[in-house]
Amino acid sequence: MSSTPRKRRASGGREARRTARRQAPVSTAAFIDREIPCFNLLNDEALETIEHNADTVLEEIGIEFRDFPEALELLRNAGADINGERVRFPRGLCRSIIQASAPAEYTQHARNPERSVIIGGDRTVLVPAYGSPFVRDLDSGRRYATLEDFQNFVKLAYMSPALHHSGGTVCEPVDIPVNKRHFDMVYSHLKYSDKPFMGSVTHPERAEDSVAMAKIVFGDDFVEENTVMTSLINANSPLTFDATMLGAATVYARHNQATMISPFLLAGAMSPVTVAGTATQILAEALAGITYVQLVRPGAPVIFGTFAAAVSMQSGAPTFGTPEPSLILYAAAQLARRLGLPFRSGGALCASKIPDAQAAYESANTMQTAALAGVNFMLHAAGWLEGGLAMGYEKFVMDADQAGMIAALLGGVDMSDAGLAMDAMREVGPGSHFLGASHTRAHFEKAFYRSKIADNNSFEQWELEGSMDAAQRANGIWKRMLNDYELPPLDPAIDEALLDFVARRKAEFPDQNY
Amino acid sequence: MSSTPRKRRASGGREARRTARRQAPVSTAAFIDREIPCFNLLNDEALETIEHNADTVLEEIGIEFRDFPEALELLRNAGADINGERVRFPRGLCRSIIQASAPAEYTQHARNPERSVIIGGDRTVLVPAYGSPFVRDLDSGRRYATLEDFQNFVKLAYMSPALHHSGGTVCEPVDIPVNKRHFDMVYSHLKYSDKPFMGSVTHPERAEDSVAMAKIVFGDDFVEENTVMTSLINANSPLTFDATMLGAATVYARHNQATMISPFLLAGAMSPVTVAGTATQILAEALAGITYVQLVRPGAPVIFGTFAAAVSMQSGAPTFGTPEPSLILYAAAQLARRLGLPFRSGGALCASKIPDAQAAYESANTMQTAALAGVNFMLHAAGWLEGGLAMGYEKFVMDADQAGMIAALLGGVDMSDAGLAMDAMREVGPGSHFLGASHTRAHFEKAFYRSKIADNNSFEQWELEGSMDAAQRANGIWKRMLNDYELPPLDPAIDEALLDFVARRKAEFPDQNY
Repeated sequence: MSSTPRKRRASGGREARRTARRQAPVSTAAFIDREIPCFNLLNDEALETIEHNADTVLEEIGIEFRDFPEALELLRNAGADINGERVRFPRGLCRSIIQASAPAEYTQHARNPERSVIIGGDRTVLVPAYGSPFVRDLDSGRRYATLEDFQNFVKLAYMSPALHHSGGTVCEPVDIPVNKRHFDMVYSHLKYSDKPFMGSVTHPERAEDSVAMAKIVFGDDFVEENTVMTSLINANSPLTFDATMLGAATVYARHNQATMISPFLLAGAMSPVTVAGTATQILAEALAGITYVQLVRPGAPVIFGTFAAAVSMQSGAPTFGTPEPSLILYAAAQLARRLGLPFRSGGALCASKIPDAQAAYESANTMQTAALAGVNFMLHAAGWLEGGLAMGYEKFVMDADQAGMIAALLGGVDMSDAGLAMDAMREVGPGSHFLGASHTRAHFEKAFYRSKIADNNSFEQWELEGSMDAAQRANGIWKRMLNDYELPPLDPAIDEALLDFVARRKAEFPDQNY
Repeated sequence: MSSTPRKRRASGGREARRTARRQAPVSTAAFIDREIPCFNLLNDEALETIEHNADTVLEEIGIEFRDFPEALELLRNAGADINGERVRFPRGLCRSIIQASAPAEYTQHARNPERSVIIGGDRTVLVPAYGSPFVRDLDSGRRYATLEDFQNFVKLAYMSPALHHSGGTVCEPVDIPVNKRHFDMVYSHLKYSDKPFMGSVTHPERAEDSVAMAKIVFGDDFVEENTVMTSLINANSPLTFDATMLGAATVYARHNQATMISPFLLAGAMSPVTVAGTATQILAEALAGITYVQLVRPGAPVIFGTFAAAVSMQSGAPTFGTPEPSLILYAAAQLARRLGLPFRSGGALCASKIPDAQAAYESANTMQTAALAGVNFMLHAAGWLEGGLAMGYEKFVMDADQAGMIAALLGGVDMSDAGLAMDAMREVGPGSHFLGASHTRAHFEKAFYRSKIADNNSFEQWELEGSMDAAQRANGIWKRMLNDYELPPLDPAIDEALLDFVARRKAEFPDQNY
């Protein structure tokens, strides 16, 4: 999306965007500036019922904050009722704490300022998938991911114009010990991309290492005064936060770095087997986690996260791209807007093991839903396979192509004279065609989204070219991209300082695989 | 969807639906009764601009009604300005004629009353794809369609609970002469299904034959007083209607049968290369065509149709499932609602030749859009491949599975106490799971949509079962369906009368392939 308001648009929010632009001197080309409304599934009465019930959950049932006494202390001082590790919140307490300090939007700075993103409001940032131990490609099938795969996906995201973010654990580099992977992951994001990235959350020390490495690149003061990482804090649903996630969230909040507090729900297993019940639990968990972050450092950027799938009631397996998680996502986005926070959801989610029609139906269903719901931070927008167990090379470029379509969809309708095209209809008239019309010639280049994956040729041409399916075409595309990849510039002194830091820290403690 | 309003729902329209139910004694299980809002892309100002411009097109440029003098006569008498075959409409004339008589919704009766559908308002009817000369399946690839294929798709639609309609030319039975195919097609719909169907539109006489055959089944008076067919009338865009389509529309309107007046646009070729310009042209064409139908018989049921794809500006080929046609579809649905008419769009549209990821991304993008836009009659909801040139067996059952998801999505959120599930959260509490909870056990059976195509098993289980992709699983499903198919009951006397009619009429004129 261009930063220049060159078109008259059909829907509002321009003034708010202009204000944001004045505040944040970054190019809006780095993210989507939404020009269409959000889809509001539920009416106010339904939303108020869910909000009331979430407060009842917080008041009656409460949330466990496990093995993390400092959280209990903070929460008690803020007015929560503590019983062991069970924290109960008086009705309305969480909302008032959050709304007193949590920002409605924030800028996550990239090391290339042109790639900094604004998260919140009418903006949408599309982010690669996160967390898979396996990778898959057409040539070698499914295998454990390595650091080379990790770097490949960082490079592919860097080269994908529709992806605005380098992501976090784009796959698990299982060839590196668990307790040292974060060094290589953060370094790879900083070295092979200049897009914004996510920090490590698997241990508070690893979060501190992520902050330290960011400081080498951005400078100590800049990091403390701005936000350069957005990191993923999952709840242990139902109604529980554990010490690992609380520890990482605490580190990031203290350094003014953003966290997304994400209830991670497989509905039917980790939340009720209904849409409204699951939305209620999401809100209760998000309110509790975000409240904690605001108590650690009032004003620290925080995203209302959600990850919701439905469990198959036959097998217990998670399912994706089905209607109930879409309804949950729409509802959660509305709840986040009413709370006044940026919203995160999943993107190209699917259960399929391979980049086939199942993968695509499920991914498109979720991406369309997330886009219309008004997601601000769409994690898992590219690459996800097998319920997140595998990152697919072909799937990645296929999803990235869909991500470009999401940008065009959210770009809305050009209502300028050129867009209204009355002259074109006057020029062409009945029974003729528009292909050679002067209006068409003037506007065709940017008129329609051009897919890099879709084959729109005739059957005969397609057959002549080898009758390839989309995954086979995608296979050629990611290989060409990696072949054409060029490193973004990085000050050699900074690169050396990063490598020194990593080498020194890695030498300070033994390898461990936990 | 159930006809009993068993749930408290989050969005409105209940009263209107209850009224409709009193008027039409048909089961709502036969179609979707929408419980969620429509997505309104454009604001009123933008819609008014498009409406103003469409009136300018009708007033200044006008519409050609070709080779059909009786239309010119009717239109002249209604106040249009006729110049040769060019018809110009004073501003507002079309809208006032349409709103004076065209019904906002109507019942299309099926020969099995339980399968009659209400078209319009909050209802959505999902209909198979229409018009392909080829079929494709995994076993024999792509080949010309035959009457056997036609009958197979009628059977598959009959057996698909998420498809509410038998469709029309589900594929072209090219083994039957062009001028006699309609007998076999209409007979097949009546014989092999009891769902509602579409009549022939390729010649006015074939439309008359369709009416005559319907009368054998429904009775003469019933057909004249009710609607038992909904048939497809495409405009020859830009801004033209031809004698074939006008002739068929005239026949159907005279007999009180429904038509959908559908601008058929490949944007950039048959309409301007912009969203707003194409929406304007759609509205102008629909207004003109629908006005004509209302002049033929005021009150004859008519649908505001649209078929919009974008042309690839590199190759001239049509593309599907891309963002601009989605924006057009959202806009057109709003324009139809403001006019007060039922709305038709495409469904599972795609350019892919095979049921691969491209097909699924594109189809899902269009189906999600159509569903949220508020489509009442979703043509091409199952089977479409290759821009409509091929009907796919595997694609059909894959899309029909998605159609079931659309029904669940439009079913909305259960806001009853069971849906809100507070007892479930009280029962389970933090850190446990919901799988064995009494609330889960009471509600899991109808909780989540269960796909027949998706494989949600573990990677290992999937591999053990042959590492099949979605298309391979679909291949087994359509074969089992055809194997299990049973004829719906049909009075043997009626069957004999139909066969006699077809034999007599076929003998009256020689075979021709046009």
